[in-house]
Amino acid sequence: MLVFGRRRLLTVLLQAQRWPFQPSRDMRLVQFQAPHLAGPRLGLESGNGKGVIDLNAFDTTLPKTMVEFLEQGEATLSVARRALTTSLPVLPQSEVTFLSPVTRPDKVVCVGMNYVDHCREQNVPVPKEPIIFSKFASCIVGPYDEIILPPESQEVDWEVEMAVVIGKKGKHIKATDAMAHVAGFTVAHDVSARDWQMRRNGKQWLLGKTFDTFCPLGPALVTKDSVADPHNLKICCRVNGEVMQSSSTSQMVFKTEDLIAWVSQFVTLYPGDIFLTGTPPGVGVFRKPPVFLKKGDEVQCEIEELGVIINKVV
Amino acid sequence: MLVFGRRRLLTVLLQAQRWPFQPSRDMRLVQFQAPHLAGPRLGLESGNGKGVIDLNAFDTTLPKTMVEFLEQGEATLSVARRALTTSLPVLPQSEVTFLSPVTRPDKVVCVGMNYVDHCREQNVPVPKEPIIFSKFASCIVGPYDEIILPPESQEVDWEVEMAVVIGKKGKHIKATDAMAHVAGFTVAHDVSARDWQMRRNGKQWLLGKTFDTFCPLGPALVTKDSVADPHNLKICCRVNGEVMQSSSTSQMVFKTEDLIAWVSQFVTLYPGDIFLTGTPPGVGVFRKPPVFLKKGDEVQCEIEELGVIINKVV
Repeated sequence: MLVFGRRRLLTVLLQAQRWPFQPSRDMRLVQFQAPHLAGPRLGLESGNGKGVIDLNAFDTTLPKTMVEFLEQGEATLSVARRALTTSLPVLPQSEVTFLSPVTRPDKVVCVGMNYVDHCREQNVPVPKEPIIFSKFASCIVGPYDEIILPPESQEVDWEVEMAVVIGKKGKHIKATDAMAHVAGFTVAHDVSARDWQMRRNGKQWLLGKTFDTFCPLGPALVTKDSVADPHNLKICCRVNGEVMQSSSTSQMVFKTEDLIAWVSQFVTLYPGDIFLTGTPPGVGVFRKPPVFLKKGDEVQCEIEELGVIINKVV
Repeated sequence: MLVFGRRRLLTVLLQAQRWPFQPSRDMRLVQFQAPHLAGPRLGLESGNGKGVIDLNAFDTTLPKTMVEFLEQGEATLSVARRALTTSLPVLPQSEVTFLSPVTRPDKVVCVGMNYVDHCREQNVPVPKEPIIFSKFASCIVGPYDEIILPPESQEVDWEVEMAVVIGKKGKHIKATDAMAHVAGFTVAHDVSARDWQMRRNGKQWLLGKTFDTFCPLGPALVTKDSVADPHNLKICCRVNGEVMQSSSTSQMVFKTEDLIAWVSQFVTLYPGDIFLTGTPPGVGVFRKPPVFLKKGDEVQCEIEELGVIINKVV
């Protein structure tokens, strides 16, 4: 297209300018551990995941968990913003273990059949209302942790998903106000034992979705102001390097705002609550013949602007 | 029966002796607030629910939440045991607000169709495996709090249930070891919006079970050594004084030990995790014609030895 709208032109120019010159201005919050530092800590992923700025060293009054950090809202976010514009030491990646950017949230809310193209793959109609299920928070693991294949399942499958992290408490939130309740976005892998999800447990999906290690998250909570358009991001899952899922978050049936409005009719949302917003087509169970994860596989889930998580199956 | 086995005779004699003489030796842990005391605190329900002993005043090093108390295991339990045998001031009930004995657990694990007589009422076969679903922890409220009738449901129903509270972390727990992972028992009300549970949300039960206020719990976490036999307790639900459910925990299909063994195949259990072990017959939805809760109703859920929770519907 040669004809740009004025606003679009401005965005393109700003992005073009931002990309090579100001990558570190994106706020990518992490939880991490390092052998020489006490306990899990908060940090900023720095320079394309090459290292971590220790936020708890920058300001010793900051909480050490993301849920508490989010609970304090603008007060703690402004500290992180100051750290971004300050020249600070960067811990090299080799010295750091990345944890999930959020641990022990009150809720992990999941959405079923939320990609138009994933519905087509299953030959089911696009849902008229979101279908909500959940995982227990105990199944969350870090962005580079191992997925443990449980002997109880023979059909463990992959699902890359965009995750939304809630930043502000709310009930009966209107879709038009929903983004004010979002802290940011991250990459999730909604690992799914299809035998338990689809045929066992009275067809309640919970058990098949919530085996330990079935929710890798990360690498960073990318704050919403650092993401140009969360509903226009390439989303991809590779197993042993082979592309299995490749779509765009534009294919989501119910967008972030709709999902927050819907779920907050039922429950109060709290800082740290996580929404897994559904997966695009290409999962193993609907392949012909079906394909499932096996020991030794490596799964990469990647979303444009958010990053990549890499989890080995053991 | 005139012929007792020796062991049974001993139990009967011990219980007969214990009941009138040593009621205060039962350990009934609570979380409470009082206007003149900072924040939620831990206490012991004293003298048939007539008041509370402030455990945080007795030992200022104790944590102030039940989850943290349970995480410290024997160390904190022994402090509570000492408090039981010490003469301590009792805060009168009128000065105290009882909270749920556990707040913000990692999991609220629920079991469907787990009473033989409740299966008969529905005309469904007794399940061969436990059917597991969940509530979000955010729907837990205190033993005397209000149940908010959501305008989104027209079919809100009652379900009295015995709740098991986990005291010790574990995975792949054997049934024979399961009681070592139990801290104790309490009374739960698994409030259920039947329209959302049974007909909406792709028949995933979660949403209908997890509206805010849909999990009253309490009044106390009664430690396991204070309960003679958790699987032989009268269990009852009254709505506006009328008995709606009346059964015995002996009717449970899968007992506490089975449920812990089953669920811990999938997930690691943590101190504070709560199991709602299913409900006996007499719920509103299977009455002819069906009956549902309405504003102004008062629901009493009572379990022998554990106590009664009373929740008004508003």
